[in-house]
Amino acid sequence: MKILGIEHIAIATKDLEQDSSFWSDILGINYLGKEIVENEGVVTDIYNTDQGKVELLAEYGEESPITKFLEKRGSGLHHVCLEVEDIHKAVKELKSKGIQLISDKPTIGAEGYQIVFIHPKSAGGVLVELCQKQKQNK
Amino acid sequence: MKILGIEHIAIATKDLEQDSSFWSDILGINYLGKEIVENEGVVTDIYNTDQGKVELLAEYGEESPITKFLEKRGSGLHHVCLEVEDIHKAVKELKSKGIQLISDKPTIGAEGYQIVFIHPKSAGGVLVELCQKQKQNK
Repeated sequence: MKILGIEHIAIATKDLEQDSSFWSDILGINYLGKEIVENEGVVTDIYNTDQGKVELLAEYGEESPITKFLEKRGSGLHHVCLEVEDIHKAVKELKSKGIQLISDKPTIGAEGYQIVFIHPKSAGGVLVELCQKQKQNK
Repeated sequence: MKILGIEHIAIATKDLEQDSSFWSDILGINYLGKEIVENEGVVTDIYNTDQGKVELLAEYGEESPITKFLEKRGSGLHHVCLEVEDIHKAVKELKSKGIQLISDKPTIGAEGYQIVFIHPKSAGGVLVELCQKQKQNK
């Protein structure tokens, strides 16, 4: 599997409005825009440093995967996303090595990328997202 | 202040030996080596994706800043480090904007970089490290 780099870090927030000002006004990181990722149950503000993005995640809809995290830990670092060359190859390889994925089949996340999540149990307590930017012709 | 990119994400771990195999053997990220950062109270394994590094942090010495984190949350994402062009300028600017730093004066972290930490209280619950790679002539 080929890891191309850190695509983004994601930060769960209880207050998108308030927290966004740190990344935009204080640090001056380029704001790419807001996106509702309905199937992931989040609304996200994306900032691009040009070497990795920062994504703020707030709850969206009735069942958001970040609700439990926010209740338990409050706002803070939620996951890291690594870009891979070929997500289907990566999933196959990870499964063959006994790595637990949250879902075996890539779904569509923010910015239209194909994504999967590796379970923190298999990644030293870290929720790791893998994404592939380019569509495959397969 | 000019943010150049995500320099690394740092992961606190209770078991460096065990967790390192996920990043090196499973994901195949290039291992740069181990470093003891005595004044920060950590030993770190560094992996380089070429677009942002992954640093595993384990306790070192009697008073490690990650001990409390590990007791409370277990192994997991600890902080994100952003590279800046000029760390002294950044500190000055942050202080003028009322941002709380853990220490006002840059210290030397892993790989010899000049570093400061922004308090999570000022950064939406996220521990944010800033680093400058190049030495200044000032």
